[in-house]
Amino acid sequence: MEGQPVISVIGSSAPPAETYELARQVGRLLARAGCTVVCGGKGGVMEAVCRGVAEEKGFSLGLLPAGIEEANPYVTLPLSTGLGEVRNVAVVSSGDAVISIGGAFGTLSEIGFALKLGKPVIALNTWSVQEPGAEPPLLQASTPEEAVKLALEKAGKEHHGGR
Amino acid sequence: MEGQPVISVIGSSAPPAETYELARQVGRLLARAGCTVVCGGKGGVMEAVCRGVAEEKGFSLGLLPAGIEEANPYVTLPLSTGLGEVRNVAVVSSGDAVISIGGAFGTLSEIGFALKLGKPVIALNTWSVQEPGAEPPLLQASTPEEAVKLALEKAGKEHHGGR
Amino acid sequence: MEGQPVISVIGSSAPPAETYELARQVGRLLARAGCTVVCGGKGGVMEAVCRGVAEEKGFSLGLLPAGIEEANPYVTLPLSTGLGEVRNVAVVSSGDAVISIGGAFGTLSEIGFALKLGKPVIALNTWSVQEPGAEPPLLQASTPEEAVKLALEKAGKEHHGGR
Amino acid sequence: MEGQPVISVIGSSAPPAETYELARQVGRLLARAGCTVVCGGKGGVMEAVCRGVAEEKGFSLGLLPAGIEEANPYVTLPLSTGLGEVRNVAVVSSGDAVISIGGAFGTLSEIGFALKLGKPVIALNTWSVQEPGAEPPLLQASTPEEAVKLALEKAGKEHHGGR
Repeated sequence: MEGQPVISVIGSSAPPAETYELARQVGRLLARAGCTVVCGGKGGVMEAVCRGVAEEKGFSLGLLPAGIEEANPYVTLPLSTGLGEVRNVAVVSSGDAVISIGGAFGTLSEIGFALKLGKPVIALNTWSVQEPGAEPPLLQASTPEEAVKLALEKAGKEHHGGR
Repeated sequence: MEGQPVISVIGSSAPPAETYELARQVGRLLARAGCTVVCGGKGGVMEAVCRGVAEEKGFSLGLLPAGIEEANPYVTLPLSTGLGEVRNVAVVSSGDAVISIGGAFGTLSEIGFALKLGKPVIALNTWSVQEPGAEPPLLQASTPEEAVKLALEKAGKEHHGGR
Repeated sequence: MEGQPVISVIGSSAPPAETYELARQVGRLLARAGCTVVCGGKGGVMEAVCRGVAEEKGFSLGLLPAGIEEANPYVTLPLSTGLGEVRNVAVVSSGDAVISIGGAFGTLSEIGFALKLGKPVIALNTWSVQEPGAEPPLLQASTPEEAVKLALEKAGKEHHGGR
Repeated sequence: MEGQPVISVIGSSAPPAETYELARQVGRLLARAGCTVVCGGKGGVMEAVCRGVAEEKGFSLGLLPAGIEEANPYVTLPLSTGLGEVRNVAVVSSGDAVISIGGAFGTLSEIGFALKLGKPVIALNTWSVQEPGAEPPLLQASTPEEAVKLALEKAGKEHHGGR
């Protein structure tokens, strides 16, 4: 795991089929790039990204709210955090960059925390958020390829250092 | 504190002057309605709402990330939660409804958590957030009066019960 | 609430009857001294201390893991934190001093967090804890009167300041 | 990581030299047994256990309170949780069993949370804790070998299941 960034992927547990496929492709691309992928470990977008990672023999970590029986079958290391929804903070804090795909209300909380923590957040068919009179805070991507490219670029700048 | 709802107020610690005055007026109106006000206890919108509450001899609770030396001078009961930014979850979870005024990234995380928890969220000159293909999740208000009226209406429906 | 300390009271939700009475008496004494009492808001020791506070027309705040339907009937202000067991951190962090009465495993976690945060912890018929080769970390009290006296003395030294 | 338990190791960041060596030996034994090791990622006992794991080419995960610059140099995957001391909950919740070695106040909070969560807790030269009138809650070990043996036995009973 040395030298490659950690990328957090967030999104809904019940996405439409096309969003699921976007996430799976993001997982494949992140694994090929040698990244460690962190997510919430459950279904939907989380399952899809872990599935893509597994298809490329990469490594994914799933930070679950409670018991690991909620884990999707593809996550490499499922962890029961015991934190409930507070685990959302750990999911986004763990990444050098965050990719948001689709998403429901929990995803919105993760976008907020990620921005608060100064993380670059890449948006792929996700929430649009806008503060009155401010710059748009999300980096827009229109394909999985573009999302992963942006994430790697931005992650490089605030990297895990010599690791 | 029997019989009246708890209203959470969220917003930036460094708002423009007009946003500060909106929040102060919201505080006055909530106190006149007999509500308990919960906020993050710091400056800016949090100070303004506590100030309005104090002007009407109401009760405000400030849930601070760390030490109470960060509390604004108007909060009735400042509490040092020791939770860091995780305290954002407690701020919105405590309310029967949430009023968001202005706001920065932390506020966005609070909006997300509030929606996730099923809380009604009233928007007063705050973030606009939109999920692709979904209903707008925030209830728009254009004045402090309208925001407080909406909050009380919505809070009543999922009330603190017999208390 | 100006000028008087905040005291956190922790303990089991299912104590024996005599422990319940100790906690109730602690609640009465804290209220008479003008303290704000913070606890976990549920049954057992938490109910007993809120009951004692209510008997003396004091103010208690109950930080609940989830919904306020779990609140005991005596707590002045029950708050739904949405934090699950993480709320234990907020309970002990809120106090200028902590009184532990009886107690189960959750109480032990609170004792640990309180000590970690540098809070004085007064022990009334509670866990005994001992690190090899170190000073005993808890201040022993044998009656409610002694526990409250110790809590007020120790709280005064790291006080809510000018508030 | 399939089929082998996750073991959490907790302890002080500033232990005496002999405690450091106990933790290092525990790390070696856990890695040889194929376990994933979770700890707080910092110095002292956490460094020692990660060092032992690294010496045997195992896998350790370090859940850090804030930035990964605090990580010890031996941890395989350091994660910045952004949770502050709340991360203690995640450290112990992640394990199928918990080994406590030496320890300061944070360790005591972790022991409490682990017991609250129903985890088996193995004690190796650590805190002694005793509730009045109850069974001793910790499983005593006198050597690293015994601690790891107990942890594996107990972890097996509430295992990560088919993973």
